[in-house]
Amino acid sequence: MKIAVLGGTGNEGFGLGYRWAMAGHEIVIGSRKQEKGARAAVDMLEKCPDGKISGTDNLSAAQQAELVVLSVPYWAQEGTLDAVKEALTDKLLITVVAPSGEKKSRVHHLESGVSAAEEAQAQLDGVTRVVAAFQNIGAHHLLDLNHQMDCDVLVCGDKKGDKAIAMQLCADAGLRGVNAGALQNARAVEGLTAVLIAINVIHKVKSAGIRVTGIN
Amino acid sequence: MKIAVLGGTGNEGFGLGYRWAMAGHEIVIGSRKQEKGARAAVDMLEKCPDGKISGTDNLSAAQQAELVVLSVPYWAQEGTLDAVKEALTDKLLITVVAPSGEKKSRVHHLESGVSAAEEAQAQLDGVTRVVAAFQNIGAHHLLDLNHQMDCDVLVCGDKKGDKAIAMQLCADAGLRGVNAGALQNARAVEGLTAVLIAINVIHKVKSAGIRVTGIN
Repeated sequence: MKIAVLGGTGNEGFGLGYRWAMAGHEIVIGSRKQEKGARAAVDMLEKCPDGKISGTDNLSAAQQAELVVLSVPYWAQEGTLDAVKEALTDKLLITVVAPSGEKKSRVHHLESGVSAAEEAQAQLDGVTRVVAAFQNIGAHHLLDLNHQMDCDVLVCGDKKGDKAIAMQLCADAGLRGVNAGALQNARAVEGLTAVLIAINVIHKVKSAGIRVTGIN
Repeated sequence: MKIAVLGGTGNEGFGLGYRWAMAGHEIVIGSRKQEKGARAAVDMLEKCPDGKISGTDNLSAAQQAELVVLSVPYWAQEGTLDAVKEALTDKLLITVVAPSGEKKSRVHHLESGVSAAEEAQAQLDGVTRVVAAFQNIGAHHLLDLNHQMDCDVLVCGDKKGDKAIAMQLCADAGLRGVNAGALQNARAVEGLTAVLIAINVIHKVKSAGIRVTGIN
């Protein structure tokens, strides 16, 4: 599958893109600036010489891709989606965005009263559908394929088929995706990111994560 | 320790009270009606004949206890705290309350924009301190001491010492408590309850839970 990773120059987007490239997907790294995207592609190709990897600006990346991953800081979400909206028609958008407040270790509700993922869905109403995933994954070990990531990915969305695609991408990245219900549930999943940051700080570790128990 | 469990006639409060009684704590079950509390105590004594267990109304229970656990439905939280407030001075309150919306499998933000635990803390401002814990624990297996519960308890509060007490109560109930940061983080932890209900429904199981990974 040809996947655009908008904000793919950041640690998490780059790490996921790398893992998907290694799994055989074609990756287009998007950035605000074409040159930055192209440079990140060169870096990724160094780590994955046989990969189909290119880099460009966010809009061109979205235009080329079959599926689009949004991996930008929350403050850039609305602007980025505005810039690429026309290219998103009927292309599933998987958002990785987890907003944070001033203190990253404290759960912060958005003024809208909903999740960043629901804000994205509202902005893309009539254009395409949004699935939330990878909010709680540390970028830390993504570049080390030998590292078995001890965490699950909670996947929230309103269509089962969309979540199945996201869960396949979890598997392709070496992670287990767990169907966690409606897109609305991203409210708690995004907040969990701050909880995990708090746990990292308190326990002096770098990659606290969660596993879902009691399911097969 | 002498522990009042307000709303201890409900499944989760009763189950926790039973486990604490078995661990040697003295339990006072509180209920809106004195007779209901007393009846629940008789039931608990049947399962734990050597336990120090009694039951009464919520206010009397709170008056007698050194530590108070709030285990009522969210809609009853404010009224219950109003009724017992005078007896809570400097007694740590551990709240188990996880509010839910109309659809229990969907994360629902409260109108206040904060967590139920923070609402409780605001109501008890100047009276005592609140810790949030046990929000994500299914009541299902609490009465079966041989059942090894495969889940952690996220403990949120603003004082380390308060959380240490709550974490000891987790251990006494056969569970691992994890310090999950400030009371504010209960916003995500309370929401996680709906996520786990969604996972139960989707995966056709009864006791999905979470484990924190990456810590010792």
